Amino acid sequence: MKQLVLICLFATLCCGQETFQPASTNVWGAEYPKVDNSGKVQFRIKAPEAKTVQVNFWGYQKLDMTKQTDGVWTITTPPQVPGFHYYTFLVDGIEVPDLNSHAFFGGGKDVSGVEIPEPGTNFYDVQNVPHGQVREIWYHSKVTGTWRHALIYQPPNYDTQIKGRYPVLYLQHGGGEDETGWIRQGRANFILDNLLASGKCKPMIIVMAYGYAGHAGKPEPSFAGKAFGSPEMMKAMQELASAFEDDMVQVLIPYVDSNFRTIADRDHRAMAGLSMGGMETFQVTFDHLDLFSYIGGFSGAAGPLVLGGRKLDVKTDLNGQLADPAAFAKKVHLLWIGVGSEEPKGMHDGLVNLHKALDEAHVQHVFYESPGTSHEWQTWRRDLKEFAPKLF
Amino acid sequence: MKQLVLICLFATLCCGQETFQPASTNVWGAEYPKVDNSGKVQFRIKAPEAKTVQVNFWGYQKLDMTKQTDGVWTITTPPQVPGFHYYTFLVDGIEVPDLNSHAFFGGGKDVSGVEIPEPGTNFYDVQNVPHGQVREIWYHSKVTGTWRHALIYQPPNYDTQIKGRYPVLYLQHGGGEDETGWIRQGRANFILDNLLASGKCKPMIIVMAYGYAGHAGKPEPSFAGKAFGSPEMMKAMQELASAFEDDMVQVLIPYVDSNFRTIADRDHRAMAGLSMGGMETFQVTFDHLDLFSYIGGFSGAAGPLVLGGRKLDVKTDLNGQLADPAAFAKKVHLLWIGVGSEEPKGMHDGLVNLHKALDEAHVQHVFYESPGTSHEWQTWRRDLKEFAPKLF
Repeated sequence: MKQLVLICLFATLCCGQETFQPASTNVWGAEYPKVDNSGKVQFRIKAPEAKTVQVNFWGYQKLDMTKQTDGVWTITTPPQVPGFHYYTFLVDGIEVPDLNSHAFFGGGKDVSGVEIPEPGTNFYDVQNVPHGQVREIWYHSKVTGTWRHALIYQPPNYDTQIKGRYPVLYLQHGGGEDETGWIRQGRANFILDNLLASGKCKPMIIVMAYGYAGHAGKPEPSFAGKAFGSPEMMKAMQELASAFEDDMVQVLIPYVDSNFRTIADRDHRAMAGLSMGGMETFQVTFDHLDLFSYIGGFSGAAGPLVLGGRKLDVKTDLNGQLADPAAFAKKVHLLWIGVGSEEPKGMHDGLVNLHKALDEAHVQHVFYESPGTSHEWQTWRRDLKEFAPKLF
Repeated sequence: MKQLVLICLFATLCCGQETFQPASTNVWGAEYPKVDNSGKVQFRIKAPEAKTVQVNFWGYQKLDMTKQTDGVWTITTPPQVPGFHYYTFLVDGIEVPDLNSHAFFGGGKDVSGVEIPEPGTNFYDVQNVPHGQVREIWYHSKVTGTWRHALIYQPPNYDTQIKGRYPVLYLQHGGGEDETGWIRQGRANFILDNLLASGKCKPMIIVMAYGYAGHAGKPEPSFAGKAFGSPEMMKAMQELASAFEDDMVQVLIPYVDSNFRTIADRDHRAMAGLSMGGMETFQVTFDHLDLFSYIGGFSGAAGPLVLGGRKLDVKTDLNGQLADPAAFAKKVHLLWIGVGSEEPKGMHDGLVNLHKALDEAHVQHVFYESPGTSHEWQTWRRDLKEFAPKLF
């Protein structure tokens, strides 16, 4: 009898029958989705009238769910890659967020997300260490003619050590996301808190701006109806990045430097961004090396060099700043190219080729490849964890 | 010809044909929902396979939508009351948020919201005045055994006038909402910015806490399966309010007073809340008149006195603090009871009766009735606009 109890206990502990727990991304009290240690996820949605229901992990997979007799559709997925994944349900083809999940802004809309724990990893968890704060600011931009909203991370002790001044990292979200992404999905504040507590990086301010902009009085750049990577889409992206650059240089940076205790010089100013935010980073920083000396592209960099598949021409690309690698290395303390090993081929190859071209041209840079992850937040959390310690 | 142009122009301006504009609550670039000056709303959702689709304004009305030949369901609603309204679609009975709308946390989930402008009103708009900031803090609570998240509004100039100290208003969301409600739905920061700019209130810090709590090691209080207003639900609410009170008094207030430049005494500390937050306010403040001297119940107050319909007993209710009205008026600078004129009968009558009983017992208080609004954010925005100028 005792043996049977032990066997049952063993089976329970090891075979995953009872190890499913509500996801940390769920709303208060929601039982599903549930996640187990292997990364499997159990989803539930009641839709008695529906003919087909799928769970839709954006860009990765659509999995058919099964209707139970009570009208609830269920699935236990194969193991998912650790990290944060956007998802929705497709109910007879309509995209439906899961009301059991908190909403996260991605793809231009508020959708569901599920956090798959990575065993042995806690660098983005809330831990018992001193915590920074995240501030919301509203500023009026003469460039866009609108009120703009940004989030700003201040390190622990910012309020108590009132004479301290800090370097600044400008950190941008990706296309379809917004200024909340790096906190809600990326957990950038906890990553910094944890790095700081273990003495691995310098205290810094992080500014997360709204990455969309249009020049006042002109039609807003739109991607509607433009194929991904097409010349038309790249042109709209360029217009957007140009307005974003003007707002950042003419309004946001002066605002931050006059409202926060920054060290307002190029040696203490960095910019990084993911995907579209990486493109914006390359645009802003290479136009303004008078303002920035640290540059990070997380799964994104100079647009045509990555998505267009064109080879880097050091003489002319990026304003010719790479033409003299020794001078560039003196001027730019860090040029970072990051990518996930499992990203879609065009993105992965584009970034690897950029890295190789930089190597060939003897341009000093750091190339980082996140193992096993795609164009997703786990890649960018790791980028930030490795990138931040190299700053300032 | 000129006359015809003028007539067309007049028709366009006055007859609402062309006056529908995308709602301010929409995501970037979303055309629908559209709102006109009379408060009518146009909704759209594509659901070619659905048999029935309704738009569902919570607690108010469900309106049938009409299927067009392209599979898009449409409706132009009758005029809605100005302010913020939660809504979802009901597609064959499944509750579906509108992906064109930003998500707002209410009813325990992230759902859609539509802002109906109130003509002639701008007290909660972002205006060209100095803006405060909203901070996110994370603190560990020994009471709940968890990390807790709160939002804190700091008035303009908090960072520049670094010797200034400020009074504090603790401001709570309602049941089913969370600490983000007063900013996202309530626009409390803009209300304060505007009041301050016109010299109508004193600069203050506003703390918006997460209104749910359970004592560490005990099962979380749950409302699941409990009828609204039932003794079981009131008991769960009481347990929740008790844990919330302990966290607030033992952890949050000390945290705020040691991390922000507050004036840490009862004369400079207020608490108010809406609905469930009003109940929490009455619980916390009447237990701790050593800590608070301003009390606001916005569509919510001492639970059993409102929802239970029981008449106030000044001798025993609220810890007997009202038994000596003269002493109470000396101790408590403001007791505020607010309600919307169109609230559900139980809630409206409960609050009006509480107000009458306070009058009968000669307990000094302010009664405020928001004209034409129900148990909704427009009522509470107006409460805050009238309440804040009476503080400190």
